[in-house]
Amino acid sequence: MPHRLAITPGEPAGIGPDLVVQLAQHPHAAELVAVADPELLSERARLLNLPLQIETFDARQPARAQQPGILKVLPVELAQPVQCGQLNPANAPYVLDTLTQATRGCLDGTFHALVTAPLHKGVINEAGIKFSGHTEFLAEQTHTDQVVMMLATPGLRVALATTHLPLRQVCDAITQALLEDVIHILHRDLRDKLGITAPRIYVCGLNPHAGEDGHLGSEDEEIVKPTLHRLRNEGLDLVGPLPADTLFIPKYLDHADAVLAMYHDQGLPVLKHKGFGTAVNITLGLPIIRTSVDHGTALDLAGTGQADNGSLNAAINSAIEMSKQWKTRP
Amino acid sequence: MPHRLAITPGEPAGIGPDLVVQLAQHPHAAELVAVADPELLSERARLLNLPLQIETFDARQPARAQQPGILKVLPVELAQPVQCGQLNPANAPYVLDTLTQATRGCLDGTFHALVTAPLHKGVINEAGIKFSGHTEFLAEQTHTDQVVMMLATPGLRVALATTHLPLRQVCDAITQALLEDVIHILHRDLRDKLGITAPRIYVCGLNPHAGEDGHLGSEDEEIVKPTLHRLRNEGLDLVGPLPADTLFIPKYLDHADAVLAMYHDQGLPVLKHKGFGTAVNITLGLPIIRTSVDHGTALDLAGTGQADNGSLNAAINSAIEMSKQWKTRP
Repeated sequence: MPHRLAITPGEPAGIGPDLVVQLAQHPHAAELVAVADPELLSERARLLNLPLQIETFDARQPARAQQPGILKVLPVELAQPVQCGQLNPANAPYVLDTLTQATRGCLDGTFHALVTAPLHKGVINEAGIKFSGHTEFLAEQTHTDQVVMMLATPGLRVALATTHLPLRQVCDAITQALLEDVIHILHRDLRDKLGITAPRIYVCGLNPHAGEDGHLGSEDEEIVKPTLHRLRNEGLDLVGPLPADTLFIPKYLDHADAVLAMYHDQGLPVLKHKGFGTAVNITLGLPIIRTSVDHGTALDLAGTGQADNGSLNAAINSAIEMSKQWKTRP
Repeated sequence: MPHRLAITPGEPAGIGPDLVVQLAQHPHAAELVAVADPELLSERARLLNLPLQIETFDARQPARAQQPGILKVLPVELAQPVQCGQLNPANAPYVLDTLTQATRGCLDGTFHALVTAPLHKGVINEAGIKFSGHTEFLAEQTHTDQVVMMLATPGLRVALATTHLPLRQVCDAITQALLEDVIHILHRDLRDKLGITAPRIYVCGLNPHAGEDGHLGSEDEEIVKPTLHRLRNEGLDLVGPLPADTLFIPKYLDHADAVLAMYHDQGLPVLKHKGFGTAVNITLGLPIIRTSVDHGTALDLAGTGQADNGSLNAAINSAIEMSKQWKTRP
């Protein structure tokens, strides 16, 4: 039986619905179930001049691999009609509702994985809802304390010890406890969700040149090295801390199952340079499989047919691969 | 008449002398003058089993392009004989002496440019000499207040607003005055030394997502944006601040003459990933042309014949190109 994936199109005025309609034009090895307003998807298909036959999702039926032009939809109703490119706070609760229902379906076994298209943080906050991002929302919904953001493209996976923090707060955020949690999650999910038997993780130093023996900052000596030492004694295969500027070369990457960067702009520029347009964002540490695109809502492209679905396609393929690997559900 | 380049082999126990001997085996479009102990080079050539005929450099003779197997040398005497791979503080003054003489030759017009192989900071400090790096030493020798480090590889140049600072000190180091100085130097040297008539510079934000309108750190709003605004009014072609994670993609790089990163590990991982083994380090802001390799002394490879001279070769080619462009000597 094919795996069953929940897909949330995210912000309805952005390119998310376009991407889902475009994807539905092609066969996929899994059943794709859009968690969305069916009218929104039909309307977007009309705008893009693409055929789309919508079938209401019924969990009791056996999963059927995605057929071109037909899309299963778990219906969630919009509050107000959508104008492409026009953000509307009235629809913010709808966006969160799609996520909540999709997540619940992953937790109760209806879906094997969740794939998310981009939402717009600003308009949700404008609606008066405290919201700091997809990942944090999913962590809350699933009662998860610590998650790890990892981006992947063929030949390179980069996980982050810290994510969306002002640069000024990064050094204090890097503690031994945080690094232990992050590396444990990364190791475990590389093994259990990605099927890498004995993951080897290369770790960037926090400071330039990994602190140059303490001459360029003390944290690599005092925090990173002792943590890696302790985790190696548990049997984890960790290399580093290495200078981030010379880590992303074949000598290391040829042997790395993942690179752990200490902060956002240390690890992601090279990942997005290498994986341009096809990078997948994978949230590790959740009790569900979740992948996502690596781009934003591109409001100006909604309804134009110019949105590129390379990243969403890669996110779906990753979710399918991970669904095959992941046997040990909590 | 060919241009005349001074080359300092750097740390005598490292791979610098090997690289110079290896380079001398090939023709070059300029006259290469090694500023070094001739005995050291002859001995290294014997170890590598490579032919090397040394000619003492005479500034009064016309420059002659580099011929295979013959090397001009401006002699500087070692304090003690060298063992490959064995650092010896007694030779630290020699290393600085080669640099001083080469720099003097660039300032007085004997040489068109300086190309440096790697030295070893630690052993110079061990010798009781306060020394924080090649670049700082050259700035001091040439009475230059502010220099800018830029790395270049085909298709990408990355300049740094700050270089070898602990990460914790980066945010406070990024001031409007610093950014103005750095961008002025970068613009001027791209134009005068690299021959780019109207350089377009893409500028990274300091914080992730370039601060997301102030939600992820205030510095991009308060420091970076007003500085760029003011410099644009002077006529400089500046784009940004842009999120560093999505800046290094064709959409931007196809139009960028250089990218300005705010700190070391924001800009160099992608540069060294892309330019692996052939990146050139160019010091901007000096009253001389100076290029350098992007790697270290590799003590374990000295004398083995396994050192790769791709980066030194690229550094020489860059110095030749820059010598052709640079008409307006101070």
